Amino acid sequence: MAAKAQALESATLAERFAATRALSRALAAPLSDADATIQPSPEASPTKWHLAHTTWFFETFVLRDHVERYSARDARWAYLFNSYYDGEGARHARERRGMLSRPSLGEVLDYRARVEDALLEALPSLPTEATELVELGINHEQQHQELMLTDMLSAFAENPLAPAIWQRGARHEEETAPGGRVGFAGGIHEIGHQGSGFAFDCEGPRHPVLLHPYSLDQAPVSNAAWIEFIDAGGYRDPSLWTADGWAWVQANGIAAPLYWSRDPDAVWQRFGLDGLRPVDRAAPVAHVSWYEADAFARWAGARLPTEAEWEAAAADLDPCGGNQLDAAGAVAPRAAASTGGLVQMFGDVWEWTASAFLPYPGFRPQEGTVGEYNGKFMVNQFVLRGGSCATPRGHMRASYRNFFYPHQRWQFCGLRLARDV
Amino acid sequence: MAAKAQALESATLAERFAATRALSRALAAPLSDADATIQPSPEASPTKWHLAHTTWFFETFVLRDHVERYSARDARWAYLFNSYYDGEGARHARERRGMLSRPSLGEVLDYRARVEDALLEALPSLPTEATELVELGINHEQQHQELMLTDMLSAFAENPLAPAIWQRGARHEEETAPGGRVGFAGGIHEIGHQGSGFAFDCEGPRHPVLLHPYSLDQAPVSNAAWIEFIDAGGYRDPSLWTADGWAWVQANGIAAPLYWSRDPDAVWQRFGLDGLRPVDRAAPVAHVSWYEADAFARWAGARLPTEAEWEAAAADLDPCGGNQLDAAGAVAPRAAASTGGLVQMFGDVWEWTASAFLPYPGFRPQEGTVGEYNGKFMVNQFVLRGGSCATPRGHMRASYRNFFYPHQRWQFCGLRLARDV
Amino acid sequence: MAAKAQALESATLAERFAATRALSRALAAPLSDADATIQPSPEASPTKWHLAHTTWFFETFVLRDHVERYSARDARWAYLFNSYYDGEGARHARERRGMLSRPSLGEVLDYRARVEDALLEALPSLPTEATELVELGINHEQQHQELMLTDMLSAFAENPLAPAIWQRGARHEEETAPGGRVGFAGGIHEIGHQGSGFAFDCEGPRHPVLLHPYSLDQAPVSNAAWIEFIDAGGYRDPSLWTADGWAWVQANGIAAPLYWSRDPDAVWQRFGLDGLRPVDRAAPVAHVSWYEADAFARWAGARLPTEAEWEAAAADLDPCGGNQLDAAGAVAPRAAASTGGLVQMFGDVWEWTASAFLPYPGFRPQEGTVGEYNGKFMVNQFVLRGGSCATPRGHMRASYRNFFYPHQRWQFCGLRLARDV
Amino acid sequence: MAAKAQALESATLAERFAATRALSRALAAPLSDADATIQPSPEASPTKWHLAHTTWFFETFVLRDHVERYSARDARWAYLFNSYYDGEGARHARERRGMLSRPSLGEVLDYRARVEDALLEALPSLPTEATELVELGINHEQQHQELMLTDMLSAFAENPLAPAIWQRGARHEEETAPGGRVGFAGGIHEIGHQGSGFAFDCEGPRHPVLLHPYSLDQAPVSNAAWIEFIDAGGYRDPSLWTADGWAWVQANGIAAPLYWSRDPDAVWQRFGLDGLRPVDRAAPVAHVSWYEADAFARWAGARLPTEAEWEAAAADLDPCGGNQLDAAGAVAPRAAASTGGLVQMFGDVWEWTASAFLPYPGFRPQEGTVGEYNGKFMVNQFVLRGGSCATPRGHMRASYRNFFYPHQRWQFCGLRLARDV
Repeated sequence: MAAKAQALESATLAERFAATRALSRALAAPLSDADATIQPSPEASPTKWHLAHTTWFFETFVLRDHVERYSARDARWAYLFNSYYDGEGARHARERRGMLSRPSLGEVLDYRARVEDALLEALPSLPTEATELVELGINHEQQHQELMLTDMLSAFAENPLAPAIWQRGARHEEETAPGGRVGFAGGIHEIGHQGSGFAFDCEGPRHPVLLHPYSLDQAPVSNAAWIEFIDAGGYRDPSLWTADGWAWVQANGIAAPLYWSRDPDAVWQRFGLDGLRPVDRAAPVAHVSWYEADAFARWAGARLPTEAEWEAAAADLDPCGGNQLDAAGAVAPRAAASTGGLVQMFGDVWEWTASAFLPYPGFRPQEGTVGEYNGKFMVNQFVLRGGSCATPRGHMRASYRNFFYPHQRWQFCGLRLARDV
Repeated sequence: MAAKAQALESATLAERFAATRALSRALAAPLSDADATIQPSPEASPTKWHLAHTTWFFETFVLRDHVERYSARDARWAYLFNSYYDGEGARHARERRGMLSRPSLGEVLDYRARVEDALLEALPSLPTEATELVELGINHEQQHQELMLTDMLSAFAENPLAPAIWQRGARHEEETAPGGRVGFAGGIHEIGHQGSGFAFDCEGPRHPVLLHPYSLDQAPVSNAAWIEFIDAGGYRDPSLWTADGWAWVQANGIAAPLYWSRDPDAVWQRFGLDGLRPVDRAAPVAHVSWYEADAFARWAGARLPTEAEWEAAAADLDPCGGNQLDAAGAVAPRAAASTGGLVQMFGDVWEWTASAFLPYPGFRPQEGTVGEYNGKFMVNQFVLRGGSCATPRGHMRASYRNFFYPHQRWQFCGLRLARDV
Repeated sequence: MAAKAQALESATLAERFAATRALSRALAAPLSDADATIQPSPEASPTKWHLAHTTWFFETFVLRDHVERYSARDARWAYLFNSYYDGEGARHARERRGMLSRPSLGEVLDYRARVEDALLEALPSLPTEATELVELGINHEQQHQELMLTDMLSAFAENPLAPAIWQRGARHEEETAPGGRVGFAGGIHEIGHQGSGFAFDCEGPRHPVLLHPYSLDQAPVSNAAWIEFIDAGGYRDPSLWTADGWAWVQANGIAAPLYWSRDPDAVWQRFGLDGLRPVDRAAPVAHVSWYEADAFARWAGARLPTEAEWEAAAADLDPCGGNQLDAAGAVAPRAAASTGGLVQMFGDVWEWTASAFLPYPGFRPQEGTVGEYNGKFMVNQFVLRGGSCATPRGHMRASYRNFFYPHQRWQFCGLRLARDV
Repeated sequence: MAAKAQALESATLAERFAATRALSRALAAPLSDADATIQPSPEASPTKWHLAHTTWFFETFVLRDHVERYSARDARWAYLFNSYYDGEGARHARERRGMLSRPSLGEVLDYRARVEDALLEALPSLPTEATELVELGINHEQQHQELMLTDMLSAFAENPLAPAIWQRGARHEEETAPGGRVGFAGGIHEIGHQGSGFAFDCEGPRHPVLLHPYSLDQAPVSNAAWIEFIDAGGYRDPSLWTADGWAWVQANGIAAPLYWSRDPDAVWQRFGLDGLRPVDRAAPVAHVSWYEADAFARWAGARLPTEAEWEAAAADLDPCGGNQLDAAGAVAPRAAASTGGLVQMFGDVWEWTASAFLPYPGFRPQEGTVGEYNGKFMVNQFVLRGGSCATPRGHMRASYRNFFYPHQRWQFCGLRLARDV
């Protein structure tokens, strides 16, 4: 895997741009125009919108701003495909993205090709300021690739016919998840991004943090463990939950991870992009909210790790390893064999941490409109670490900070237990 | 026109079935799979759903119940395409119809063909009870044809690109709407359907009503008159509105008919299936709610007619005349020349009446599940009469009772003023 | 009873004014300042607000407008105690009436005394126009007396301690409700108010209506019959309900009349102003919505009467008879002995009719602000007839039209079955 | 002031219990039964409820659990006056506390006296475990004293008559707020409670934290500075706000601190328990949400301090100093003279920090039902430090962690700016 990461890193910007764009196309390949148009909830966008928005990002911040004679495909599309950049003016309401049957998927794919051609042609003569935006655009599109998969899943999960978009590949699977713990000493550690490679603004500045001795479980919490939690009445005991978590459970009738259902024999099934399948007992649990993760940890007599604990433990591991997204297909968390140490820190499931998403000491957002990227979301959300089976390989870093609201669970989110030692 | 109606009536059931089915297909012809999939609001369904639901109606109540070896296309589709028949079991939530990217438009069209073939094959040997259901199914599909057009309009109106689905046909237009009144004597009149032709259950029983002398305006209220109402502050004066109407105006910021906007020169535009166009001053106003119609009438020193007044006045007019739906295209209300008497009683716009939709004396719903057709909606709605430019020609009758909630206005609804004399 | 009505009618205006004002005071007597301040729902107002609003009505429309040197108690109170008269300017939000801990109950009672003194002093020299407004104000206050009782009940029903405000008086009760029917011929009848006595504007003009032969049940539907309906699964069978009614049942978990609960032995109790008591089987059912009344009638193979049918049947009965409000106390519907004919047409429970509340032919609202009295509510509501145990005796007429939304049931509303014959 | 704190600490438990109970009574003294009953919002409780709930706390956790023959005043009251302890069973819905006109304020005051007598009698013989609960109960009641004042303010602010509950005391006021900054070195500091005095569970364990060099403003942000922010368009510029903050501003039309309004001359007024008064320019701004505090700090080129920064800076200051609650009256933040160093760290306004309310390393909730005290709220809230003008003097500590949701602002919440140095 390390060799693969190496290869990814040494590719030219043009090659990485082209590869990223191709992967997005491949992800959309099995979808009809209608599949790519519908929006299952305000928080999950249509595939077509993702395809167009990531293109708008390159068109706006690179081509419009840095390529002299470039003229936009359609001036009105900026209104449609701006996501949340107030600096770029008014925009179509997020919760009405699913109303855009026009432009069609075909038109959006043409738009992509047009922008790709213009960008590849301009690339050799772009100033550094602009190539940095291309780099940002690639990383931005990789984030949307993960969202494309999770939003697609959310859309198809609404369909009573439970369509399978991809076949499930044959694969060897472990019977049980590794059950050990790994201890870490306390003391001052540095966290946050450093060095010359790409990182999002919120990953810095690198700074020292003080840790207390702790352990992490070798592996994320498994589906088998989650079923134990259910069977033990975990969803019915308020003493395990925060007040807001309990209110959320009550108001929404929550009793299992998202996409789980019982078949007529009461066996747990989960819906995935490969259709309805029995739950893999040894695989990490996915599609649980922070509220659920926190309650599970309390039930287990443990806690969630802080993001600093997680990052310190992951610092020397290969962020390109594990079960991440290499090609279009029916991604899912997988069981892993024990290697004695931490497994699945990268890939499989994002791991909820105990840390609210807040600025690091000395954080300053990037200048200009792209500075709206992360800073304005630093309230009410929790940090997740490590990437998932839907994260494009090469996108991840130990310092990477993902964030979602504590009730959200349509991403591949799971957890790993931590303990004071 | 009367000749045309004659022709419609004398066609065989098979011919009328085939023609109705063909018109639905033609209406959907300009739509992409995505266009046909999206749902703009809980009350407006996707075109694909209309196409499938009208087919499910024939499949269920005729083929399943009356044709021995018929096997359903897909047993799970009944769950998707039942509208509101509690007697037919559980069904997909109405407000989530727009989530059904599968089956595709193509699959739904195949489903239509399959059911049409089976029905036409079975038709010669069906018992009367079943041919009556075919007749009901044709009328049912005609209703959905109108909804297809109005729901499409509602969907495209959400798109900031304001796409035109059909070109506007060339046509001669009058400059002003006829402005006279026609008086009617009071006394006992019979209303309600009678005779051997088809009618919905709610149109009967035919019964006497006592009318007081009244007049009706020759023509429906025009767009020009509506602009006067706007300019006179009609939307800002609570004394013109019912309490519920005023609350609706305030809560929704209502200041013009649905789909109206001002261009940069403050000229009123309206969005239609032919795109954004200047408002036709002489044409009947459309897309106004009962609340608006009632306020306008009060402002004009008049009132809405009761449904009995309307029906008595329309009894001798040709229900197949006027501007109704003959073929797929960009329907819209049109200006009419004065003929001295009432004009546009049929076609152009549904006319709100002062009558709540309630059962006629002696009303009994039809037996069985199809008996859920109308009776269960007899509360909280108002009667509209006369059909619109989107009503398939041949579907209308003087006794026809359409009904909507007083805040709804995505149909082609307008009004005609009445007065005591 | 007729003698009593006679007495009421012959009393002078001043006497009736004083008696009405005294009854309101008596109704509030058992309440603390806090009891009189709280508001259980947007539709039910605090007792203190009723006491002040009815006073504001006299102060505004009589004293301010017709008594030269009258100065208002506090100019700011108009903002607090205007109910819904847009013509009188802005006002405190209806749903925040329960926030007015000041002015206190004592201050409001002082305000009442001040206005009463001024009005009684001015009365002898008031012009007819103003004495008519005093008459209107008396009738207005009587309406609020009923609301005071029903709103009080609604407020105390929120209290888990189930406080009894009044002791229940001893009384003889029948064991069963009369079970016969009374038939009526069809033909042209006149309905609506006529003559010189007071009536609200919506009761006229008097006009002919055409009736078809019908019967009415001798007595309103009893609690015993309603328990049968519950036991027969009436609340769980969608085929008995209108679509809107069924949606209301589902959304609110409706399974019994308002204020009903089962004691530990599953015996039905009802909460009243005399506390929690077993349901009286022979008494008319109360606190049911139009939706419930309509579903019950369908279940019973009957229907609700139209308001014209009801009025024609009631025309010769004594509107001052029956179980109506004579003095402050724990009102409740009572069982009645059969007399061979219709019983309990007046008093006990308001009877839901099949008629939407709409204007009579030729209806014109009164001029000026008081013209907002009834006309602006003529949409979305149903007519109820006959008054209840909470209606002040002397207030009722055969032509009296009360109206509520079909889901509302905090009034003493019941029903009487009608049938075509 | 330090002498005063000394005195408070050396008082016996019985004396402090009695003094705390007396202060609650004094706070309620100017209120009528109705004043004490109404509830302005789900988050703000009636005074009567606070008076009863704090009593229920002693009755339940001390008398019921530790005093043998104690019998509860009314077994049903536990249902009414439990706040959120799931371990104590079902309870009255929080948002319906304003419906409890019974028991009356008088009955609640009797209940208080009864429990006080029983507790003072039992106190000498209570085991340590129980006296610790008395200590907790005193601190619990002090928290509710602050809520009583802020909830009262919230209730009276609903009244268009703007009643003044207390007269404003005469006092000397500064003209401008101190404008300097105080710098602090970084390094490892200990925070969290230590020692033998009382503290809430969430204040521990004491633990080392690593700080970076920083400065704090001498004084909290003043009203004058806030008016500058308003005038500079701070409430209309999305770039100053977090995404959630901006959404909150838009959805609620926020344009000034809570309780602020402009008089006819556009001069800012604020409503307080002493009525409507001009805003004190030199006093700390109060009644701003975290969203507003965060946006203001960004506008000022500064940031909010972390709670560790705040606590390290406050460690050596007198927590009993400053403008805190000594006696019932119209509390309000006050201007302070500069002393060269930090002013107003304790008292005047709670200061929003940049820290989410999360458990300290090694945090364990207390055993038993009282363990629900703080731990279950550790999500979605931000920490505030330092107490306010409504905090009973003697209740505060440098380690004290208050917490509210980022949109809440009915407390006396302000902010102090921090900067990296």
